[in-house]
Amino acid sequence: MAEEVSNKQVVLKDYVVGFPKESDMEVKTSNINLKLPEDSNGILLKNLYLSCDPYMRSRMTNRDRASYVESFLPGSPIIGYGVSKVLDSRHPNFKAGDLVWGFTGWEEYSVVSSPQLSFKIEHTDVPLSYYTGILGMPGITAYAGLYEIGSAKKGDHVFVSAASGAVGQLVGQLAKLTGCYVVGSAGSKEKVDLLKNKFGFDEAFNYKEEEDLDATLKRYFPEGIDIYFENVGGKMLDAVLLNMRPHGRIPVCGLISQYNLQQPEGVYNLSNIIAKRIRMEGFIAFDHYHLYPKYLEMILPYIREGKVSYVEDVAEGLENAPSALIGIFSGRNVGKQLVVVARE
Amino acid sequence: MAEEVSNKQVVLKDYVVGFPKESDMEVKTSNINLKLPEDSNGILLKNLYLSCDPYMRSRMTNRDRASYVESFLPGSPIIGYGVSKVLDSRHPNFKAGDLVWGFTGWEEYSVVSSPQLSFKIEHTDVPLSYYTGILGMPGITAYAGLYEIGSAKKGDHVFVSAASGAVGQLVGQLAKLTGCYVVGSAGSKEKVDLLKNKFGFDEAFNYKEEEDLDATLKRYFPEGIDIYFENVGGKMLDAVLLNMRPHGRIPVCGLISQYNLQQPEGVYNLSNIIAKRIRMEGFIAFDHYHLYPKYLEMILPYIREGKVSYVEDVAEGLENAPSALIGIFSGRNVGKQLVVVARE
Repeated sequence: MAEEVSNKQVVLKDYVVGFPKESDMEVKTSNINLKLPEDSNGILLKNLYLSCDPYMRSRMTNRDRASYVESFLPGSPIIGYGVSKVLDSRHPNFKAGDLVWGFTGWEEYSVVSSPQLSFKIEHTDVPLSYYTGILGMPGITAYAGLYEIGSAKKGDHVFVSAASGAVGQLVGQLAKLTGCYVVGSAGSKEKVDLLKNKFGFDEAFNYKEEEDLDATLKRYFPEGIDIYFENVGGKMLDAVLLNMRPHGRIPVCGLISQYNLQQPEGVYNLSNIIAKRIRMEGFIAFDHYHLYPKYLEMILPYIREGKVSYVEDVAEGLENAPSALIGIFSGRNVGKQLVVVARE
Repeated sequence: MAEEVSNKQVVLKDYVVGFPKESDMEVKTSNINLKLPEDSNGILLKNLYLSCDPYMRSRMTNRDRASYVESFLPGSPIIGYGVSKVLDSRHPNFKAGDLVWGFTGWEEYSVVSSPQLSFKIEHTDVPLSYYTGILGMPGITAYAGLYEIGSAKKGDHVFVSAASGAVGQLVGQLAKLTGCYVVGSAGSKEKVDLLKNKFGFDEAFNYKEEEDLDATLKRYFPEGIDIYFENVGGKMLDAVLLNMRPHGRIPVCGLISQYNLQQPEGVYNLSNIIAKRIRMEGFIAFDHYHLYPKYLEMILPYIREGKVSYVEDVAEGLENAPSALIGIFSGRNVGKQLVVVARE
């Protein structure tokens, strides 16, 4: 028999121009049947933790060009990564009671009709919420960006921007474990303290307090930067280009300083790419999910042995999800921003 | 006994700001002894052909930062690639009568005190002047950029800017021989005709006649660009970024549109690097000279069999060298610009 329950949802009201506001989303309630129809091939999820990630901004824009992810549909719930419990399954890989991480809706219950991007959670001795971050998409992003794209090796001088975020904090710690010299930038004293005292960066600075980023980078990297893990773009990228070492690498993970601008800032120092033979390469976690088992094998012991720290910024309840999401674009969060919908 | 002769030279008068002018250089005459002193380790050259290359602009600037090549010394002759005859040698690898290509001075006779960048010419059944271009630095640049940096393979859609220049004309022809679809841009009708009729590009256009480069590229690459061989920078790069295919490559060989600007233009569309996972990589021929024997083995038969065409723009006499050099920055040359100092 059909078991109909109410389903609270966070819905995008309309496409966004410029900085997103809480009022661009609204919390609505609809109903959902907790049994999948017989002709379904999908899974029905109870959502536990939702992930707030910078790339989601691009899905709030009505794009005239194809991108690697579709724009959200106004009137429909926001889509993102999350951790969920399977309540019903018509898919051979999943059964009721399984825990999964992957794409889901910003709502209490979601139907994922083709769960290619749902990963079964096998290890539950670590906090489940970690699968929105260090054990999920941001984790693979850090790992693939640093090693596959950045070719990090012992002795490299590594600079990470947005370094206290979900990806940045992990990049810095992995680089340290690899034997690199690591400097991070962030946007508050509190975050800078975290970088130095909690995550073990060699140095860190508050970019908002630096008048001349070129001079700042020269101070921290008198011999230049081998790897710039790029999360922000704009003026920081321009300053970095002046301070790269020959054969340096710039894995381009994000350009968060640009996402809400109607006209992006120009980048002026690209000529350094030739003189210094810089490799600048964009990447997305999606292309690297085949590395996930290998990554887990490395990172789980680090977490269990306390060799890697992880800081989350937790918002309670779907009602607070819009505010949590927009907060990451002004840097309000400290550490990985997530939303708790339910704890089990 | 010392054999003193007069030595005409092209000297840089002072560092250049903005577009270089003929009057930034002057032709002077000094004297030179055509016997090397006994304590020399170098070679004494009679210069035959001199090469005008875009990268030389950067050596005319007084740079406050180290680059991969030193700035020229005002009051001294311009330095560049050339083809020369060895008149005297104190270096074990060379003897009088040898022909070499490599770094030399813009003068009738030069002493190269440490000839690490002098390559002995073994094949003289092809025009000697070719060693300033297709058989010299621009040749290796095209080869390394297309294959090592660009990873060109059959079926790739390739766009080349400054396509009738020394490097561009070769990139396009090699890409065609590899089985790519190739489009080139250039700055005059004459050059566009060359690209289509002489070099066998699939398509070519005059960028000066296009109002909307994004639309132009969309017309020639409805499915997008796999490889953009970047010679120009600025607005063209921005338009290309909008039209790259996922996993596209941008070997950055030059940014000639920017070299004479006191403030470079901004590049605004870098966010495409992430969404499309683009690899943008600067390179210089210098890092790839170990490939020269392999490259010669490939290109010499192509030249002899007429499978590759090569167009030169020849200026006669050292007196015309300053005008030839500045001409390449306004695109006055058609094909590889070189200067004949002497024919033997």
